[in-house]
Amino acid sequence: MGIGELGEFGVVSRVTARFPQGDDVLIGPGDDAAVLRAPDGRVVVTTDLLVEGRHFRRDWSGPYDVGRKAAAQNLADVAAMGARPTGLFVGLGVPGDVAAEWLDALADGLRDECALVGASVSGGDVVRADSVVLGVTAIGDLEGRRPVTRSGAAPGQVVAVAGRLGWAAGGLALLLAGRAGPRELVEAHRRPEPPYGRAAEAVALGATAMLDVSDGLLQDLGHIAAASGVGIDLDPGAFPVPAALAEAGRELGEDPLTWILTGGEDHALAAVFPAGAALPEGWLEVGVTRAGRDVTVAGREYEAAGWDHFR
Amino acid sequence: MGIGELGEFGVVSRVTARFPQGDDVLIGPGDDAAVLRAPDGRVVVTTDLLVEGRHFRRDWSGPYDVGRKAAAQNLADVAAMGARPTGLFVGLGVPGDVAAEWLDALADGLRDECALVGASVSGGDVVRADSVVLGVTAIGDLEGRRPVTRSGAAPGQVVAVAGRLGWAAGGLALLLAGRAGPRELVEAHRRPEPPYGRAAEAVALGATAMLDVSDGLLQDLGHIAAASGVGIDLDPGAFPVPAALAEAGRELGEDPLTWILTGGEDHALAAVFPAGAALPEGWLEVGVTRAGRDVTVAGREYEAAGWDHFR
Repeated sequence: MGIGELGEFGVVSRVTARFPQGDDVLIGPGDDAAVLRAPDGRVVVTTDLLVEGRHFRRDWSGPYDVGRKAAAQNLADVAAMGARPTGLFVGLGVPGDVAAEWLDALADGLRDECALVGASVSGGDVVRADSVVLGVTAIGDLEGRRPVTRSGAAPGQVVAVAGRLGWAAGGLALLLAGRAGPRELVEAHRRPEPPYGRAAEAVALGATAMLDVSDGLLQDLGHIAAASGVGIDLDPGAFPVPAALAEAGRELGEDPLTWILTGGEDHALAAVFPAGAALPEGWLEVGVTRAGRDVTVAGREYEAAGWDHFR
Repeated sequence: MGIGELGEFGVVSRVTARFPQGDDVLIGPGDDAAVLRAPDGRVVVTTDLLVEGRHFRRDWSGPYDVGRKAAAQNLADVAAMGARPTGLFVGLGVPGDVAAEWLDALADGLRDECALVGASVSGGDVVRADSVVLGVTAIGDLEGRRPVTRSGAAPGQVVAVAGRLGWAAGGLALLLAGRAGPRELVEAHRRPEPPYGRAAEAVALGATAMLDVSDGLLQDLGHIAAASGVGIDLDPGAFPVPAALAEAGRELGEDPLTWILTGGEDHALAAVFPAGAALPEGWLEVGVTRAGRDVTVAGREYEAAGWDHFR
C-alpha cells in the first residue's frame, strides 16, 4: 500500500506507533509540541536536513539504514557537545507512492539508533514531497557538564580521535565505482557508528575542544583551528589503515589515507586534550596543536579537501 | 550572486550574521549544536517541514514572507502548549542558483517573526536541493506553567478562539483565482499573524485544552474531541465575517464561513475553558463541549473538510 492511500493522519499514527517514549518524555507525539525533561536547565539542540540524491540514494540505502544514518548524524552532534541525547524530531517529506512498509522501516531505523543512547523519537511532521527529505532535530541534556565547544583549544595540546575514519568515504567510493565490497565499508557508508560513549568521557578528561567529524577530519579540525585560534599538525603515521580500507584503496587505485583525512559521514569524534592527558582506550592520539590557525599533516598542507554541499 | 558561488560555509556565515542571539542563548550558531537556557527544567519542542510548491510558491510569496510564515507556524505550536518560544532552528535546502539576497530576505523574515516573541534563530543547516525546503524546529520554556494539551477538555465547557480565521484560506482562494485582492487576505496567506500573547493568557484562565489552528478549525477541534473524548458544537452565528472575507466570498461565489471553519494556515488558537470563565478581549466564544466525540456546527455535521497533505 502506498502512503497516499493512508492519508496524512494515517501515516502519522502508523509511524508514531513505532516510537516508544522514554522517561525523559513528558508529552510525546500527537500534540502541538512535545515536552521533554531538561533537568540540567540548559538544552542542547542541533538540526540537519537530509535530501535524497545528495545525502542518500534509495537504490543504495534501504529505509532502515536511512533512518539509522539520519538519527546518527544528529545524535552525534549532541554528543559532541558533551551532552546526553534525549529526543529526536523528524520532519519527513515523502512522495505519495512510497510504500507504507518503506516508512515503517525508516521509522524503525530512527528508533533503533535513538535506543543506542536512550533518546526517544518524540515528534515530527509528514508532508508530501517530490523526493524524500528529512529535517532532523536532536536535543540533549548536559547533566551538569560544561559544554565542549570548538573554541577552547590552545597551542601545545594533544589532538585525538575516537571512532572510525575513512570507512564511509571508502564505501561511497566503492559504490560510485559499482563495487559491492569490501562489504564492511559499504555498510559503513550506509550506517555510521558514532562513538557516542566517548564524548562524555572526553569532557571528564578535560577536553578543551571537541566536534563531530561530519565533513572530513581536516576540514572539521579547521573549524577548531579557526574558532580556537590554534594551528593543528597531524601525524599521518598515527592513523592505522584497516585492512578493508587498504584493500579498497588497492582496488580503486586510491590512497586510503585520503579517505581517512578527508572523508566525512563516519561521525567520529575529534577532540583536543591538555598535554599529558591520559587517554583511555578508544581515543587515538593523532596530532598536536601549535601556534597558527591552519591544519597541516606532517608539517605541510594536505591537498584534498572535504565535502562542500555547494561546490 | 547565486549562493552556489558562496559555497556552503559562505552561505552559513552570511546567513548567521543576520541572527542576533538573545539572553536565552548560551551557545549560538557555529558549533556542533546550540545550547539554550531551559530554566523551567522542561523543554517544549515542535518541528515542521515546509516544501516549495506545497506550503508556499516562490512566485506568490517573497522570501521575507516565507521566512515569517515558516517561523510563525512553529512558534505558534510552542505557544499553543502554553510556553514561551526561545529558539528556532532551520534546516534549509535551496537550489544553487537562488540569489544570496533571496536568502538574506528569508533570514530576515525568520528573524523578525522570532523577535515578536523574543526567540532567537540559534542554529541550522544549509544544503543544496532541487527546490526550496525548510525543516523548522522551535523550542520553548514553560516558565513554570502546566502545558496545555489537547486531551483535557470535558463536556459542558466553553470553546473559544483567538486570532484570525479564514483569512489565509480566503487569500489562497483569491491567488488560485488569479486575483490580487482584497489585499489584506492575500497578505494574510503570505504571512500569518498568530495571537502569540493569548496563549499564556489561556493557561492563566484555566484552559483545559488548546491548540494551534493550522489545518482548519473543524479538523483541528476534531483532534481535541478525539484526544479529550468530548463532542464539540460550534455556533455559526458566533463568527463575525470581516468585510474583506465577505467581499472575497461574493467575488468568488464562495461562502466565507467555509473559509472560517475549514481554512488552515492562519494559526489562530482554539481553546476550551471551564464553564463561566471570564474570557478577556481577544478571545471569542464560539461553541460548547458536550458528550460525544464529534464536531458539529449548529448540531449538524459540516460538509467541507480541512487540508490533508496526502489526499
